[in-house]
Amino acid sequence: MPDPRFFRRAGPFSVGELAIRVGGELAASADTARVIGDIGGVETAGEGEIAYFADQRYVLAFASSRCGACITTPEFAPRAPGHCAVITVGNPRAAFAEVASAFYPPESPSPSREPIAADAQIARGAVVMPGAVIGAHAVIGEGAIIGSGAVIGAGVVIGAGSRIGANVTLTHCIIGTRVIIHPGVQIGQDGFGFVPCNGAHRKIPQLGRVIVGDDVEIGANTTIDRGAAADTVIGTGTKIDNLVQIAHNVRIGDHCIIVSQVGISGSCTIGNHVVIGGQVGLADHVHVGDRAQIAAKSGVMRDIAPGEIVMGYPARPIRQFWRDTAALSRLTRRDK
Amino acid sequence: MPDPRFFRRAGPFSVGELAIRVGGELAASADTARVIGDIGGVETAGEGEIAYFADQRYVLAFASSRCGACITTPEFAPRAPGHCAVITVGNPRAAFAEVASAFYPPESPSPSREPIAADAQIARGAVVMPGAVIGAHAVIGEGAIIGSGAVIGAGVVIGAGSRIGANVTLTHCIIGTRVIIHPGVQIGQDGFGFVPCNGAHRKIPQLGRVIVGDDVEIGANTTIDRGAAADTVIGTGTKIDNLVQIAHNVRIGDHCIIVSQVGISGSCTIGNHVVIGGQVGLADHVHVGDRAQIAAKSGVMRDIAPGEIVMGYPARPIRQFWRDTAALSRLTRRDK
Amino acid sequence: MPDPRFFRRAGPFSVGELAIRVGGELAASADTARVIGDIGGVETAGEGEIAYFADQRYVLAFASSRCGACITTPEFAPRAPGHCAVITVGNPRAAFAEVASAFYPPESPSPSREPIAADAQIARGAVVMPGAVIGAHAVIGEGAIIGSGAVIGAGVVIGAGSRIGANVTLTHCIIGTRVIIHPGVQIGQDGFGFVPCNGAHRKIPQLGRVIVGDDVEIGANTTIDRGAAADTVIGTGTKIDNLVQIAHNVRIGDHCIIVSQVGISGSCTIGNHVVIGGQVGLADHVHVGDRAQIAAKSGVMRDIAPGEIVMGYPARPIRQFWRDTAALSRLTRRDK
Repeated sequence: MPDPRFFRRAGPFSVGELAIRVGGELAASADTARVIGDIGGVETAGEGEIAYFADQRYVLAFASSRCGACITTPEFAPRAPGHCAVITVGNPRAAFAEVASAFYPPESPSPSREPIAADAQIARGAVVMPGAVIGAHAVIGEGAIIGSGAVIGAGVVIGAGSRIGANVTLTHCIIGTRVIIHPGVQIGQDGFGFVPCNGAHRKIPQLGRVIVGDDVEIGANTTIDRGAAADTVIGTGTKIDNLVQIAHNVRIGDHCIIVSQVGISGSCTIGNHVVIGGQVGLADHVHVGDRAQIAAKSGVMRDIAPGEIVMGYPARPIRQFWRDTAALSRLTRRDK
Repeated sequence: MPDPRFFRRAGPFSVGELAIRVGGELAASADTARVIGDIGGVETAGEGEIAYFADQRYVLAFASSRCGACITTPEFAPRAPGHCAVITVGNPRAAFAEVASAFYPPESPSPSREPIAADAQIARGAVVMPGAVIGAHAVIGEGAIIGSGAVIGAGVVIGAGSRIGANVTLTHCIIGTRVIIHPGVQIGQDGFGFVPCNGAHRKIPQLGRVIVGDDVEIGANTTIDRGAAADTVIGTGTKIDNLVQIAHNVRIGDHCIIVSQVGISGSCTIGNHVVIGGQVGLADHVHVGDRAQIAAKSGVMRDIAPGEIVMGYPARPIRQFWRDTAALSRLTRRDK
Repeated sequence: MPDPRFFRRAGPFSVGELAIRVGGELAASADTARVIGDIGGVETAGEGEIAYFADQRYVLAFASSRCGACITTPEFAPRAPGHCAVITVGNPRAAFAEVASAFYPPESPSPSREPIAADAQIARGAVVMPGAVIGAHAVIGEGAIIGSGAVIGAGVVIGAGSRIGANVTLTHCIIGTRVIIHPGVQIGQDGFGFVPCNGAHRKIPQLGRVIVGDDVEIGANTTIDRGAAADTVIGTGTKIDNLVQIAHNVRIGDHCIIVSQVGISGSCTIGNHVVIGGQVGLADHVHVGDRAQIAAKSGVMRDIAPGEIVMGYPARPIRQFWRDTAALSRLTRRDK
């Protein structure tokens, strides 16, 4: 369930209401009055929750799901468990994005004239510089420093001794102790999640958080998106340079070094003590093992084993990269 | 003519004053007292306007121009139409930058103590969070949300239901309806336009705007420069990720996907439904056709046809990229 | 000595205190009561200062150093000059980072409710827009404009006629005259400096500044880190585009053009009139000669001679790059 500090749930809705909302067909046998209180995944949703199913590979999980309602295609509908109210549509993922938006509509901030919310908890010894804004229920730890122009969103937690630079924006995140966040960093905004629908891109609600471990340092103007369902996580002691992009659902281990202008795509997992050189890009869902090293400007499209050192576009073992470069150079020498 | 909401014109100036200003020679026959009220292009300028000419390819357009005055080289001067007051200089482009700066000097904001200008039009139901600043004549639509620390420049228009994140800066732009702009985005600042002049770089006034269509989403810390003369345009429904750079005069079509850290150079035109992967760079004046796809980290130096899929540095058809990569790998295997 | 406008020194400390602090061994002959007032380099430190030594190549400089105390390994200890109090440790660099942090602990801003410090010097004719914050002892020159939401740190100096955009953060820097800094720029924050220590990364205090010359322009959301010991320097008339990263100790000459999304690693030196295309990356300590040109997206790992034109990853002479690209293309044609 999304963290209630950051997400307010609407509803509940009846199965019938949800079917109308997505323009879907309800099986004749379905209980249209059944009350649905939240969204969930096929494997985790319970009887008061709605999931969606659209991937043949997980059909066994679908058949044994405990979900109270499900959105799927007419083809997959017969594989649904008997207790489940089935809504069929042409594009289950787009329909589920619609349902998720019904339960978690975009937040509408309550207008306020006070820059520091009356119910924010600011520890004694914390320093809030002029021009900072602190939202409802935010928690600022002992000795933390909030820079001028920093905007701390509702519900955000900042650990003791952490330093938040000027003009930083933090939302939907939990920040550890002794963390240093340099000016202009943006943490916790929506990830880049869309589903194609009728020639346009429909927004998928992003309902996770960003969790930043203790002793992390994050460089100026870096951006870290919150998770789509699970969280985006930065491990203890990891140091991130300026202008780095970390997408939704990324999990970075402890004591990594991530140099400037690196881009880490959605759902990558990075081990501990990994070093990533400047301007490296990682495709989505890549796994990088512990103590791997990725040379500057590499484009990584496959998993990297623990301890492996890679370079190039596409990234390959670093010796191979230099061998390839030398071979190409010899080739053109022959050609002359 | 530059949009008067954003640019205040100085002048008028006589032809004689302008010639002195640029250190140019006036033809003996020229009417030094002729009044010039604005700048323009050779093809569009009228009798009260001044243009410049320095490119042999357009000499016919020059000869038939209706402009009241023109800056050109001594070599091209004889090709000017008879009615035109000709000023000759060694470097017409630099001289024209000087004239443009005379008509459109850098704006000097009127100091104000009020964060929200008295004459800003803020629709009922719009929410302005604490710490936001709204400039003179700005128009904020119904239900729009302006985040804390956001700075909305003079004359900016924001459509109904749009959400402007914290610490965003908007100037010289018109934003559509239901647009989402994430924290730290900078829109409407000067493009990167200079002309070499005596070993230094002289600034060219940037007199266009940024036009953002409906249902656009723009990721954290992305930058979009305003046009130099025409506008920079983002089409309806296009989704832009974090830390993207969009230079002056770029025109992006509808429903495109532009992933994180992409850089689009000046005057590129991108069709509809184009997908551009992370960290791609496009050289200036490149045209990308509808539904083309550009793989992550590609460097694009030529036009891309509609529907084409490219990859690499330099970018080429994606099959060719993989064939080249395999060939290089076989080559080094042979070399061992 | 670090600039006292930006750094407040703690101490002094006795040699005995410092040895305990780093967990080091003091030679039996060492004067534990000797007073040490500052840190320094082996070649520059005087009798009241402490340096560290860990590099065989500079052993002669070590032997003739005038430093009052030194941190080194047991192996190098016998090479220390006789007058020097020697502290031996396993990891001199980490120990020196600890000592540097003792002398220059992280700044703790004095909480203030006033956005504009009473002792800031703001010249007549300078304009401070609503929402800007100006720190203690800052100096704002005649006719300068400070945008809304801009945060000018303590001691910062801004020259006459300079324009600081909205939501910019400036700390630890001296800005020349007629400089244009676009919105969202971050200047003067800590460089990315760490030393490995017991499986974690220990922060090295960054005690230099950023010096920005006259007539410089810096694009939106660009980041420039302050120097570690020396300064980061941007020369007169240099123009920097959006989203550029300039690391600590970089020195850029006059009238350079640096296009969007370039990354310049620590301690690079760039000559005058250099042109660097978009998305280029430079490895650390690279030297680029005057009037060199680096094509977009190149990865530079070696020095570039004056006037040289390079391209590629790794960067090579541009003709060689195109020859290599053509050769690879012919090769795959043969393979078909």
